[in-house]
Amino acid sequence: MHIVLIGAGNMGTHLGKALHQAGHKIVQVFSRTRPRAEKLAKLLGTSYTTQLHRISDEADLYIVAIHDDGIAGLAENLSSRLSDKLIVHTSGATASTVFDGYFERFGAFYPLQTMTVGKAVDFTTLPICIDAKKPADADGLFDLAKTLTPKVYRVTDEQRQMLHVAAVFVNNFSNHLYHIASDILQKENLDFDILKPLILETALKVQHAEPKDMQTGPAARGDQQVIERHLKYLEEFPEYKKVYEVISGGIFK
Amino acid sequence: MHIVLIGAGNMGTHLGKALHQAGHKIVQVFSRTRPRAEKLAKLLGTSYTTQLHRISDEADLYIVAIHDDGIAGLAENLSSRLSDKLIVHTSGATASTVFDGYFERFGAFYPLQTMTVGKAVDFTTLPICIDAKKPADADGLFDLAKTLTPKVYRVTDEQRQMLHVAAVFVNNFSNHLYHIASDILQKENLDFDILKPLILETALKVQHAEPKDMQTGPAARGDQQVIERHLKYLEEFPEYKKVYEVISGGIFK
Repeated sequence: MHIVLIGAGNMGTHLGKALHQAGHKIVQVFSRTRPRAEKLAKLLGTSYTTQLHRISDEADLYIVAIHDDGIAGLAENLSSRLSDKLIVHTSGATASTVFDGYFERFGAFYPLQTMTVGKAVDFTTLPICIDAKKPADADGLFDLAKTLTPKVYRVTDEQRQMLHVAAVFVNNFSNHLYHIASDILQKENLDFDILKPLILETALKVQHAEPKDMQTGPAARGDQQVIERHLKYLEEFPEYKKVYEVISGGIFK
Repeated sequence: MHIVLIGAGNMGTHLGKALHQAGHKIVQVFSRTRPRAEKLAKLLGTSYTTQLHRISDEADLYIVAIHDDGIAGLAENLSSRLSDKLIVHTSGATASTVFDGYFERFGAFYPLQTMTVGKAVDFTTLPICIDAKKPADADGLFDLAKTLTPKVYRVTDEQRQMLHVAAVFVNNFSNHLYHIASDILQKENLDFDILKPLILETALKVQHAEPKDMQTGPAARGDQQVIERHLKYLEEFPEYKKVYEVISGGIFK
């Protein structure tokens, strides 16, 4: 499959590398930011452009890995030349129907993982959620995803958007809890290292069990004395106290 | 060191096994619940009692691994016969001074990990936080902990109590976020398996980096459009919506 990759940020870079390593031909990289476009194109042994009207019309698949806000505008811009091509975006938050009216064949190709610049992403353990308007395109995307990972899911727009909400809870929000803990420890001159094994074990425990069956701690036990004491300690962190109250309330319920 | 283990719950069982395996002599197990006491004593090749006044006075160290609410009462009860012995509890939430007035020599021996019945705990990767009123006892507890894990920290009562709060954030609260995500997915007929790699990667990322530097997602980007959409999707889950608002607010700040 000949692919044009639109976007050279975290997602574009990691996905581009994975596709390239799996033997797919990236015919071109687009990014408005020249250094990014150039760097990724070099990595993938291909050409690049920073101008929308220079995007190649010789690919089978256009993968849009840019900020959600930019997808609709891009679709409108590209539709005059490429409206018969298959176009997908990699976003959890945007419906694939963002392409409707501009393209005949569209879908989503959503790798569900957190991607950071400079940290390798193992696509072989990562789920990819795909969907497309036309069944034949969905089959094609499914097969493409299967060349990257065994974990491919057919997920509707609506499901993917709820999946993205759930991903925000387990990724961004858990990470914020880690940050709160790190901040509390710093104020006590304690090393964040002390908590790292606990963080890892908490994530490992739910790999083979339901989270609700793994819950422990003062809120799960309904231990009001400890909860009251914790809230008192948190008085110097009013924002963290609020988080404590809201989540403890949810656990205790 | 000859040890009496008071309590045969999760902590007592896992800690007892680890001490036993490290070659320490558990001279007796106490639990009010006979089947628990019996089971753990058998596992550790020792005797047990269910009566406080029958607790042996022939040990060097008394480890109290019971519910926080019970520690003060227990201390009062044991002090007439054992007031010259070293006594510690394993709780993050209770000050070691709970023993003051009842015992001369007291401290804390707090393994910082989540323990579940039926799941092995690897003490060799687990931090133990110790403290004692008398420096010689602190040294003894430090050495004892070192026979279980290389990660031993001298932590004051005040520090340990804040550490416990932080542990609640990364363990109980993260687990609740996993539960919320699982619940959202279930309502969409999606398999919780889809999120498991993301949960694990989120925990792995902060093993070698600061959580605040690892933050991504709509709140970190200040992407109000996506946040508004997510809040709309969460209207059928008012409690989860509240959690979303509070934590997103904290990230965005």
